[in-house]
Amino acid sequence: MSATTDHPLIDRHQETLQRAVSALAERDYWTPYPEFPKAYGEDALAVGGAAFAGLKGTTRLAAEGDELVGPDADAGGETSPFGEALNIAYGYRSPDALIAAATAAQPAWAQASPLLRAAVCAEILARINARSVEFGFAVQHTTGQAFGMAFQAGGPHAQDRGLEAVACAYAEQTRIPAKANWTKPQGKRDPLTMEKEFLVRPRGVALLIGCNTFPTWNGFPGFFASLATGNPVVVKPHPRAVLPLALTVEIAREVLAEAGFDPDLVQLAPEKPGEGLAKTLATRPEVAIIDYTGSTAFGDWLEENARQALVYTEKAGVNTVLIESTDDYGHALANLAFSLSLYSGQMCTTPQNLLIPRGGIATDQGSKSFAEVVADLADALGKLLGDDAKAAQLLGAVVNPGVRQRIERAEKGEYGELALAPRTVTSPEFPDAVIRTPALVTLDAAKDALPGECFGPVAFAIAVDSADHGVELLRETVRTRGAMTAAAYTTSPEVEAKVVEAAVDAGVSLSLNLTGGVYVNQTAAFSDLHGTGANPAANAAYCDAAFVASRFRVMEVRRHS
Amino acid sequence: MSATTDHPLIDRHQETLQRAVSALAERDYWTPYPEFPKAYGEDALAVGGAAFAGLKGTTRLAAEGDELVGPDADAGGETSPFGEALNIAYGYRSPDALIAAATAAQPAWAQASPLLRAAVCAEILARINARSVEFGFAVQHTTGQAFGMAFQAGGPHAQDRGLEAVACAYAEQTRIPAKANWTKPQGKRDPLTMEKEFLVRPRGVALLIGCNTFPTWNGFPGFFASLATGNPVVVKPHPRAVLPLALTVEIAREVLAEAGFDPDLVQLAPEKPGEGLAKTLATRPEVAIIDYTGSTAFGDWLEENARQALVYTEKAGVNTVLIESTDDYGHALANLAFSLSLYSGQMCTTPQNLLIPRGGIATDQGSKSFAEVVADLADALGKLLGDDAKAAQLLGAVVNPGVRQRIERAEKGEYGELALAPRTVTSPEFPDAVIRTPALVTLDAAKDALPGECFGPVAFAIAVDSADHGVELLRETVRTRGAMTAAAYTTSPEVEAKVVEAAVDAGVSLSLNLTGGVYVNQTAAFSDLHGTGANPAANAAYCDAAFVASRFRVMEVRRHS
Repeated sequence: MSATTDHPLIDRHQETLQRAVSALAERDYWTPYPEFPKAYGEDALAVGGAAFAGLKGTTRLAAEGDELVGPDADAGGETSPFGEALNIAYGYRSPDALIAAATAAQPAWAQASPLLRAAVCAEILARINARSVEFGFAVQHTTGQAFGMAFQAGGPHAQDRGLEAVACAYAEQTRIPAKANWTKPQGKRDPLTMEKEFLVRPRGVALLIGCNTFPTWNGFPGFFASLATGNPVVVKPHPRAVLPLALTVEIAREVLAEAGFDPDLVQLAPEKPGEGLAKTLATRPEVAIIDYTGSTAFGDWLEENARQALVYTEKAGVNTVLIESTDDYGHALANLAFSLSLYSGQMCTTPQNLLIPRGGIATDQGSKSFAEVVADLADALGKLLGDDAKAAQLLGAVVNPGVRQRIERAEKGEYGELALAPRTVTSPEFPDAVIRTPALVTLDAAKDALPGECFGPVAFAIAVDSADHGVELLRETVRTRGAMTAAAYTTSPEVEAKVVEAAVDAGVSLSLNLTGGVYVNQTAAFSDLHGTGANPAANAAYCDAAFVASRFRVMEVRRHS
Repeated sequence: MSATTDHPLIDRHQETLQRAVSALAERDYWTPYPEFPKAYGEDALAVGGAAFAGLKGTTRLAAEGDELVGPDADAGGETSPFGEALNIAYGYRSPDALIAAATAAQPAWAQASPLLRAAVCAEILARINARSVEFGFAVQHTTGQAFGMAFQAGGPHAQDRGLEAVACAYAEQTRIPAKANWTKPQGKRDPLTMEKEFLVRPRGVALLIGCNTFPTWNGFPGFFASLATGNPVVVKPHPRAVLPLALTVEIAREVLAEAGFDPDLVQLAPEKPGEGLAKTLATRPEVAIIDYTGSTAFGDWLEENARQALVYTEKAGVNTVLIESTDDYGHALANLAFSLSLYSGQMCTTPQNLLIPRGGIATDQGSKSFAEVVADLADALGKLLGDDAKAAQLLGAVVNPGVRQRIERAEKGEYGELALAPRTVTSPEFPDAVIRTPALVTLDAAKDALPGECFGPVAFAIAVDSADHGVELLRETVRTRGAMTAAAYTTSPEVEAKVVEAAVDAGVSLSLNLTGGVYVNQTAAFSDLHGTGANPAANAAYCDAAFVASRFRVMEVRRHS
């Protein structure tokens, strides 16, 4: 149970870990992982592309004798939203086998020091980082993100969130010292003295349930938080996005084995079609921690049924923007148009309901009526997405039939009057991909119910009575529907104070007057929290102490000195 | 929402708070609250005694117009286990009124800075501390603790646990800075810059459900953790132990009002006989945090039913001691005898099952057979408790009919063969009090089932096959029944390693070879954790980051610089 104080991986990563811990306290920009492919070598794109190409059609087993799932789509295999079937088969283990192997692997990892565990995690991340381009392609062809975004969000930015979780977990595990001496004066008598040891004990088997759209970005925080606190992790990927997490698991197993630990500390749990493996695993008594990103329905099911576990969920909400006034109308609209378009609005953080006073707004270009604001936003979208090749690089592809159906409903006017019809984009590179520009629908809060969650590229411009009315609708939406993000445009200190109060009260973070190169749907690790855990959209945030502090417990051993 | 940086209470308490935060990281002995009555003035006992006497027969209303509960025992009034009815009536508010007042009180407190909230909490504790003798008598005459213990555990030691929670909550709320600047380089272009504010947002209304035996010691951690993180607290005391928490609430309200906050941030919620108020309050949607100490049955009910809230429970377990060998037989037995006798074993931390190899143990006084160890422990108890007046000061009084019935069952041999019959002690000071010495029952694990929880002064000396068998029984007991404490006596490094491994694996803290002035049932704030949260006896520990970090959430407001 003694702390391991020297190990080559500690030597290699201790400085980065310390820097990451201080970054968490400073919250300025920091990352060890460059976000441009060229930083990984002049031929990084070619090398990574070839590596990805080499993955297609392979059979990926953790151990000989494992069953297989996939590779064909009918049997649950992955097909790129850009068109091609990946034809990859993955090793399959039964729930009993997964749990047994995880449980058997745990003791030595539990007894390793928090620093050694953090260093092993940092090494896993370093090796993932070195293969960022390959991960970028894997994320692109499972999620439908365009490569540029898939590389950044699925590569270095996901790695940032993973390292953030490792640093946060390491910091929390070492708040209590490993050893302490206790000396209590007793007046004229000898003092009472005790020697105390404090031992971090992991909670049990952790289960990561991955999502379709951000398998690594949303998967790494829980994965690394659980692993760094000593828990074995069973990784149950979304059936449409297995590859990025399968690569993660392969790399983790390789590093764990090299460091002398049982590779079954990390196992992939792909499912057979229709198996419902997540439910089976989530309710196993040995599963003590669950991290989940995905639909509200299944998140609610987990919270209701996986009672034996700590359950961290990121579900969905209705992200709201109040547009009350601006001193930079053009850039405000450009910023919003980008936010609505990025990855076809298929982000849990994409704005959806845009609340605009019915009487119009004040801008640096004069007063703009509600109709003008809507038309100008439609124009901004049109300009941003006018060129098919460029549009495809921003929009990516439609990730699944549910999103496609919602666009088609919007197109038919089923959600309300269309201010901007969704356009079909043809990618020269991927002619088979379904690529759609956002639909902009107008509603009036005086007669229309506020739309609930409508995941995908459908935004609603909603006329409200006044700024105050908008503030109250934002508050109510966050409270009742949840939200991952909120934003406001206002030049009025009074309105700003009200919207800040409403956002904090309702439990959502707020971006104010974004007109530059930062978008409401993006958060930066080590600085921004992702989610708040304070509204129905998510019960946790990446990454605060609450996200890691309950994943382990501290046992004390004390004796007289 | 701005942080308050100067306030007289901050000036007064900032140094103590900083010292408390560093004490948490060092875990050496530290306290600002002296544990001897004389430290509170030469005539502190007389002054405090008179203050307590003055409380009897009073009517204590938070606000004019509140209903009353009590004072007579038939109507739920408190009667001292030492004999006297307290005849105190308390103001009563309906659940609706309590929740409405708490909710209305919250905003200004939520917007105060974590430092100001911590300083207000420290002032509450300072005023409680100044009345420690009065609290000691109030605890004595509601719990049955002898005054010496009631003063220490119910006074300064409870205050320590309260300040520990305040310091821990303050530290966790300030891990993320209140403001940060973020500057991201953009190559040759201007960097992206953002200003960020991070705002702590409390979770909602907190409910403290107090216990009969340690209303302040077990109540203060949750009370202060919730209050310091911005949540209003409704205090539902145990009907037999209202007074100590009523005084706490009165002092808290006084300090809050003086500091400019709504006193309804802290409210007392005494119940009418048979009302079941805890259940009603615990399932209110507004109640977001519950702290509970008490029976396993009601703790399980809360965990099952209060689904809308974070629920921190301390229930009950089977505290186990392995006695394998010792190099200080006399002091080991004396230490154990004291632990079994203190407050008549009515502590959640009192050892209950003593596992002793059937073939005897090695000691500095030669080998001792199982029967000899049992007889020598009975002797040690007999010597410790031979004098009625002195015994009464250690044992206190039997707290309730349940405990009395268990002693009587032990006396009749219903639990097994008696190695030591419980004796009735007559206190010269309190002739009406029911005071009983511990019963020592012998069992053999080869034929008898291990006893489950038997709260009160009944201990079991249980013959086991071997040290290894004892280690496995300890592990199994902690896992299945839960435990607040575990201890072992062994001179064998091999056995020590095994019992440490078993304790950590099963999730309990371990005291090794206690032979001096530290007892397994006592933990020191700022150094020892109380409970682990890792076994069925409790899902939380006093006081780690996990105990406080989820009581609040952090909202971010960001904008371009």
